[in-house]
Amino acid sequence: MNRPKLQDPDPAITSAACRSAEITYRHTVRESDRLAVVNMCRETGFFHEGEVAVAEELVVERLAKGPSSGYEFIFAERNGTVVGYVCFGPIACTQSSWDLYWIVVSPHMQRMGLGGALLRETEQAVKHRGGTRIYIETSGREQYRPTRNFYEKHGYTVAAVLTDFYAPGDDKIVYVKVL
Amino acid sequence: MNRPKLQDPDPAITSAACRSAEITYRHTVRESDRLAVVNMCRETGFFHEGEVAVAEELVVERLAKGPSSGYEFIFAERNGTVVGYVCFGPIACTQSSWDLYWIVVSPHMQRMGLGGALLRETEQAVKHRGGTRIYIETSGREQYRPTRNFYEKHGYTVAAVLTDFYAPGDDKIVYVKVL
Repeated sequence: MNRPKLQDPDPAITSAACRSAEITYRHTVRESDRLAVVNMCRETGFFHEGEVAVAEELVVERLAKGPSSGYEFIFAERNGTVVGYVCFGPIACTQSSWDLYWIVVSPHMQRMGLGGALLRETEQAVKHRGGTRIYIETSGREQYRPTRNFYEKHGYTVAAVLTDFYAPGDDKIVYVKVL
Repeated sequence: MNRPKLQDPDPAITSAACRSAEITYRHTVRESDRLAVVNMCRETGFFHEGEVAVAEELVVERLAKGPSSGYEFIFAERNGTVVGYVCFGPIACTQSSWDLYWIVVSPHMQRMGLGGALLRETEQAVKHRGGTRIYIETSGREQYRPTRNFYEKHGYTVAAVLTDFYAPGDDKIVYVKVL
């Protein structure tokens, strides 16, 4: 649950698409998002089925419990179709720290700056809710190097490294950005 | 939720009581534990009401969802009365890492080694379930020094310090023990 996912989001080529009226950001969650999230996660080829199930479960939790689930979502849409999303939420027992749990961009929309745009939308939403810090946990494995580069490019710094956290040889890297 | 609580558990005086037949350890959860947990947390004078509510919520979650809640409990009982407990669980998306979420000892049973005995029961239970690492997150504040001393005494080492995580001036300290 605490392992945000992002498949090769390198926004090196910042497209106007993500800043134009083409992309809209929706902060509400619909029943149809459940399938959209599952399909998008599968399409990326980045996640194993256990991870897809967790991604879906977060949507289900939000639909069932509303804001008290602790999960907030922002969906990026183009022509009414979900092409990316983030899942984040306040960290219980903290004054103003938030977690970014999940961030995914549809394969055909990658390398166009949508990942960065979603991050900025998230940071604004967190700030608006009184949040002062965003934490992101990810893997230290080679597969996640583009993910880590992406976070670092957007001003997130390494706050902690937990050796062998996910599995032997698979460290947890904790990033933080002070808003 | 990820902030284990333990009020001055210093087991400096290890009493035979905790090793004797007087104390029994129950790994199942009952409806009556909800009230027992709330009362015990309040009696310690260590927790604010928001924290007591979180402690209760974990019991409620476990009662509603069973093992799939992700929360395991061990209750220490003396003459049928709950005098301490731990709440712990496997960390999602990890191979064999577990979190210790909560550990509380009844005020009249403190300084008798019950905290340490509960930790050992937990470690055995985690090992039995294939767990290889136990993580404990706690506060860097002065109020929590006895808590930190307690963990360090029982072989837990600092894996990470997250500055200002809980609030300005209130760091999160992550402990780990490799089983």
